[in-house]
Amino acid sequence: MISRLIAQIIKKDAPVVVGLDPQLSFVPKKILDAKIKDMGETLDAAAAAVVDYNKAIVDAVSDLVPAVKPQIAMYEQFGVPGLKAFTETVNYCKEKGLIVIADIKRGDIGSTSGAYAAAHLGKVQVGSAKLTAFDEDFCTVNPYLGSDGIKPFIDVCNENDKGIFILVKTSNPSSGEFQDRVLRDEDSTLYEAVGFKVQEWAKLSMDGEYSNIGAVVGATYPKMGEILRRIMPKSFILVPGYGAQGGTGKDLKPFFNQDGLGAIINSSRGIIAAYKNEKYAKFGEDGFADASRAAVLDMAEDIRINK
Amino acid sequence: MISRLIAQIIKKDAPVVVGLDPQLSFVPKKILDAKIKDMGETLDAAAAAVVDYNKAIVDAVSDLVPAVKPQIAMYEQFGVPGLKAFTETVNYCKEKGLIVIADIKRGDIGSTSGAYAAAHLGKVQVGSAKLTAFDEDFCTVNPYLGSDGIKPFIDVCNENDKGIFILVKTSNPSSGEFQDRVLRDEDSTLYEAVGFKVQEWAKLSMDGEYSNIGAVVGATYPKMGEILRRIMPKSFILVPGYGAQGGTGKDLKPFFNQDGLGAIINSSRGIIAAYKNEKYAKFGEDGFADASRAAVLDMAEDIRINK
Repeated sequence: MISRLIAQIIKKDAPVVVGLDPQLSFVPKKILDAKIKDMGETLDAAAAAVVDYNKAIVDAVSDLVPAVKPQIAMYEQFGVPGLKAFTETVNYCKEKGLIVIADIKRGDIGSTSGAYAAAHLGKVQVGSAKLTAFDEDFCTVNPYLGSDGIKPFIDVCNENDKGIFILVKTSNPSSGEFQDRVLRDEDSTLYEAVGFKVQEWAKLSMDGEYSNIGAVVGATYPKMGEILRRIMPKSFILVPGYGAQGGTGKDLKPFFNQDGLGAIINSSRGIIAAYKNEKYAKFGEDGFADASRAAVLDMAEDIRINK
Repeated sequence: MISRLIAQIIKKDAPVVVGLDPQLSFVPKKILDAKIKDMGETLDAAAAAVVDYNKAIVDAVSDLVPAVKPQIAMYEQFGVPGLKAFTETVNYCKEKGLIVIADIKRGDIGSTSGAYAAAHLGKVQVGSAKLTAFDEDFCTVNPYLGSDGIKPFIDVCNENDKGIFILVKTSNPSSGEFQDRVLRDEDSTLYEAVGFKVQEWAKLSMDGEYSNIGAVVGATYPKMGEILRRIMPKSFILVPGYGAQGGTGKDLKPFFNQDGLGAIINSSRGIIAAYKNEKYAKFGEDGFADASRAAVLDMAEDIRINK
């Protein structure tokens, strides 16, 4: 699967992922009001508004980027209708030729981790039929429970040509509380220890020069990104934290390998809510999708000149 | 919320949670076949079979236990129909007076963690309406991202009188890969460091003698349980790993406080698939719910004599 992502990154000359994290406050009032008029103030109305909003943005950017990253929490908050909207979003993006990285941060053990892997990347057996549930291309996984939580995902990646990104060093301010602790016996940090494990796990699912097993490292920590880039040479790094969270184009260089590959940068609200940013205010609320397109073009250029 | 759980534990004299983790292989053939006959080999059929199976077990044990713990992965694997079955299960258990601890192990940052908290324990605003999505009583949370991931859950617990259990030391064989690493500056392990944080977070949501902020510590690590019991005196410990994973009644003593409270023990397949165990084979596949009842009675007694 990683080779498919690489081909798309090269084709579109943009290691950019658009984070489809639709907070309801981002959705233009006109769209939500129309759905509420139809369906009342319901979870269904919210979910339907999110789908319309997503589709307009996807239509505006799908020729520019290789991938999207829907954040499932933003759909899960609307319950079952929200998860239906998530499925519709995933399917719509795939129809448009986009690779879907589901930001689900799941992590459990044994058969339970296997169930999550089957839900999002694999197949589930009912009688003699093998069915798909959410069927994304990649998803994010939390490593806190160790190999027992990761291995079932790797197996499913190998069976179905899919990939995962494992949380290593997250972009948020408090990520250091546990991730930056120095381990006595190795004299390295916890995030480095997780990085070393990712490097081992990566070998279990190679696909060309890179592995289907990648890592998440925040743009807000470029020095740690440089260290982790060396520890995990065969893993793609999914880099959140660019834009709204404070990461800039200059911070991104350490995340790339010498071959110009190895990293893909996410921006969520910086793109999907660009119309709320002064820089793109001229597009107005009705022009939210065009504002997103302009923000993607600027972001891709910022990465290109700094890489 | 923890005071409600404590009252139920005392009333039923059983610190026992039944894990509703319905692998399809646990569901008696007759139930699944009937649904497939109606709906074909579909996710809907699997989800409907799971609901029937759960309801029969809940009917058989609801007078004996204070709480159930549905594992959302087992529902998520069936996609949107599966999550509808999850909702039906949660609602049915609440109607029966059971407290619902949703095993979701979510964890993210800021507004995203807030969205998960709203989805599972809180309310989401659509127009002027405040709506609930999944509406459980407690849920489990992953701490890898630090306070940014936990605080939004604590806020929602305080607003809605709900609770969480934070993963500290998980029951699985590989949990030590990261959780047991010794931290240089504190000369304590990562799981202890997480325990110390839980102890701090616990103070932010007290409800009587105990906090709404609890911890998950596996029955398979009783010595670590003893250490963590001391580190987090005000937190209830949710203890998985009893039964099928190898934890025994004798292992449970360290998880309780002097007041006889402070721990609640989960068993999943040991109860819901008891009919597959030689000990309860006499009930047969048709008697699966009665087998579950017998297994709960034995488990409660095992805990009582060892506590």
